[in-house]
Amino acid sequence: MEKQQAKYRKILDLIEKMIAEGVLKPGDRVPSLRSLSFDLGVSVNTVREAYWELESRQIIEAIPQSGYFVRQSLPGNAEESEQFFSPDPCEVSLCQVYANFQEQGMPEAGTNLGISTLDENLRPRQKLSKYFQEIFREQDSGTFNYSMAPGLQELRDQIARYALQGGAEVSPREVVITSGCSEAVFLALRSICEPGDIVAIESPVYFNFLQLLQELGLKIIEIPSTADRGMSIEALRFAFDRFDIKAVFTIPNFNNPLGATIPDEDKQALVELINRQKSFLIEDDIYADLHSDRHRPRSCKSWDTEGRVLLCSSFSKTVEPGTRIGWVLGGQMLKRIIKLKTLINIGTSTPTQKAFARFLKEGGYDRHLRKIRSLITDNRKNMRDAVLASFPEGTTVSNPAGGLVLWVTLPGEMDTMDLYYSALEKGIIIAPGSLFTCSEKYSNAFRVNAGIWNSEVEQTIAILGRLAAKKAKSIA
Amino acid sequence: MEKQQAKYRKILDLIEKMIAEGVLKPGDRVPSLRSLSFDLGVSVNTVREAYWELESRQIIEAIPQSGYFVRQSLPGNAEESEQFFSPDPCEVSLCQVYANFQEQGMPEAGTNLGISTLDENLRPRQKLSKYFQEIFREQDSGTFNYSMAPGLQELRDQIARYALQGGAEVSPREVVITSGCSEAVFLALRSICEPGDIVAIESPVYFNFLQLLQELGLKIIEIPSTADRGMSIEALRFAFDRFDIKAVFTIPNFNNPLGATIPDEDKQALVELINRQKSFLIEDDIYADLHSDRHRPRSCKSWDTEGRVLLCSSFSKTVEPGTRIGWVLGGQMLKRIIKLKTLINIGTSTPTQKAFARFLKEGGYDRHLRKIRSLITDNRKNMRDAVLASFPEGTTVSNPAGGLVLWVTLPGEMDTMDLYYSALEKGIIIAPGSLFTCSEKYSNAFRVNAGIWNSEVEQTIAILGRLAAKKAKSIA
Repeated sequence: MEKQQAKYRKILDLIEKMIAEGVLKPGDRVPSLRSLSFDLGVSVNTVREAYWELESRQIIEAIPQSGYFVRQSLPGNAEESEQFFSPDPCEVSLCQVYANFQEQGMPEAGTNLGISTLDENLRPRQKLSKYFQEIFREQDSGTFNYSMAPGLQELRDQIARYALQGGAEVSPREVVITSGCSEAVFLALRSICEPGDIVAIESPVYFNFLQLLQELGLKIIEIPSTADRGMSIEALRFAFDRFDIKAVFTIPNFNNPLGATIPDEDKQALVELINRQKSFLIEDDIYADLHSDRHRPRSCKSWDTEGRVLLCSSFSKTVEPGTRIGWVLGGQMLKRIIKLKTLINIGTSTPTQKAFARFLKEGGYDRHLRKIRSLITDNRKNMRDAVLASFPEGTTVSNPAGGLVLWVTLPGEMDTMDLYYSALEKGIIIAPGSLFTCSEKYSNAFRVNAGIWNSEVEQTIAILGRLAAKKAKSIA
Repeated sequence: MEKQQAKYRKILDLIEKMIAEGVLKPGDRVPSLRSLSFDLGVSVNTVREAYWELESRQIIEAIPQSGYFVRQSLPGNAEESEQFFSPDPCEVSLCQVYANFQEQGMPEAGTNLGISTLDENLRPRQKLSKYFQEIFREQDSGTFNYSMAPGLQELRDQIARYALQGGAEVSPREVVITSGCSEAVFLALRSICEPGDIVAIESPVYFNFLQLLQELGLKIIEIPSTADRGMSIEALRFAFDRFDIKAVFTIPNFNNPLGATIPDEDKQALVELINRQKSFLIEDDIYADLHSDRHRPRSCKSWDTEGRVLLCSSFSKTVEPGTRIGWVLGGQMLKRIIKLKTLINIGTSTPTQKAFARFLKEGGYDRHLRKIRSLITDNRKNMRDAVLASFPEGTTVSNPAGGLVLWVTLPGEMDTMDLYYSALEKGIIIAPGSLFTCSEKYSNAFRVNAGIWNSEVEQTIAILGRLAAKKAKSIA
């Protein structure tokens, strides 16, 4: 063991020395795992671990299917780099802008680009209203009675059928209806974890989720994710080797905030890892229906054979968020989730469950999706083009194949927290990168809603672009 | 201290000896606190504590405004009496029938007397449906958007106005809309308490509340309550002297399960005690509108000057339970409750909030209450008369001035858990007394729903009565 430690240190020292002496320059490819393993007579695993450590110190970076490279900008100080891949799980602490961000509420549509929402004009308001009016006109006595957890049978049947579209064969018995996806994730987390437990999360991660983890007294370990492949399964494996991880959280399809989709082979590997480690996967699959390609991406749940994947979702991103309908496929935690839901609010609104059951059963949901998919694809494209046209040169924008959000990265040293405050003065809200982590990352990135595109949004992006350009000049 | 202990023991021994020797007989008045204090040269407080101990052992009992008396039926064994007023706060453990009871669900109306609900025929189904249809017909864009915690302004305004009927002057700013009263109590508890904290609860207490306390990892101390005055403030004071009580829970008006209402002077004393102890009161005021007398009883909140009373309520007992609308007046915990609600499910259904806001604003709720009050009073009277007529001699039934439930106490050694199982075989559900405590109390009592009265219920009571009579005979 000590011998291995020594070898590990030797690799770290070697690479750092090569960089310090200019043998390896920023952007250079570092020796492959296999070649260094051969050269130094150490196992590939030891080299991999050393590279991981270097990656966590922001000295090198992995580029998928290419290998490891020296980073373009090396970290300024050791303290900062320590936090990139926090070596120890930490309690959740949130950046100052959080409270501020939460309190801004929802100004008029179009100026709040910090949310993730579908254009109201693309929502099936009329159709849905029709079903609700029908339910209330009928005045069936059941409509006004409790539909206790797990929820109304007719809606659970529909959700089970619907899960099949993501490749998951589940029984209606596994479905628990919730008041939105947040409640589903809350129930899933609370059913699995005790305060102090460790949860591995993709990073950057949806900020409300960080706050929920904090509230539940859980420790987190942030797993690096990329816009093209989502959460790194390699990194997760690395974390599992070191820590007792109770649950893993990911939005596997068109995720928030990167827009990333985990490739099928990685999803399968993820579920296998979860099973091997006897951990749990909480999968938030809320964006999956908003795909530009012909087929909906598969859910991780579709590979679940042991009930260790808890799929959470809702209609808040695809239909509307206001009536609060979501669900969780409870897996091994089903009984516990039903009990928790019963204790917290007994059940979700009965007429709402009835209306959504009909909307699904009569094909309204599928028709609606077919109608809006290409429009959302256009919105994303328009938003992406506008950002690239308005923002300073060197700005990059993620290019997801679905979903509602784009991840914008500004060049150089630009701080999006500055941009956030300047935009706020003009009544514009963006979601700065710092919101999506507990460490010091993503300070030059922000998330923008691409679910709405109109002339007002177009003008707002132009204003934001000018603000960013001004800041870029002041730095240069 | 030791000297005081000796005096305390001396008083216990003295009274017990007097009873053992027949100097004091069942029903006799024991010496007053003042006279015994004078006679023995000990403080009134010491005598009071000794009497409390005797009361907790079920040897004597306090009769309000009269003094202490030797109990008519002395406890069978010491072990049982120990648990009457558990000397130490304990973790919540639930009796076996719990799971069973939960799983029975809701059979056809009329045979489930174990719930607490208003007759469907007395619910304003048509009126409410009208408001819902209106909301959905209008298709205002806001209807399908989030109304994030604390909730829709128009409903919070109405709830603040409505709180005034219970004597509480609150700002709409203090109102948080929830998905039913359970969620309100959950949020209140979680905002105040950490796992391991002690909560004082009235006893008997609504059973779902016990389960919630268990889920939150809280310790409880059961405070004796009577059908005529509700929770004993004296006993609560006694408990506060000994333990660090983080919160107190009560249903002060027409409570579940006793039907008890705490008198105004006791409510005021309760709030003063809470303030002095810097504790919190969680007040579930869900039954208050179902009063038979002219005036609605006051809420404890109406005496709150420090924001230490958190009032929870909903329309589930007065209008219907299925659409899930409730609220909490957050007091000092307001901010924390809003944050929690946001994290758990963002907000409560927007169209539902809108419909209830109109129902209240246009006077529909008040008209509805005026219509049903006397009918509910009749239901309670009919139920009470039927139980007294059908059950064995010696059966007593509480006689509340409002609410939906009656508390039935069977004579002698009869065990209502037996009755529960026998009734279950005939498709009848009652709520046995053991459900309402974590100790061994109330085994000869059960709660019965008086919100519904019809010939089916009448027949059911007759069947139950015969079952009880058979059991009474088999014991005799």
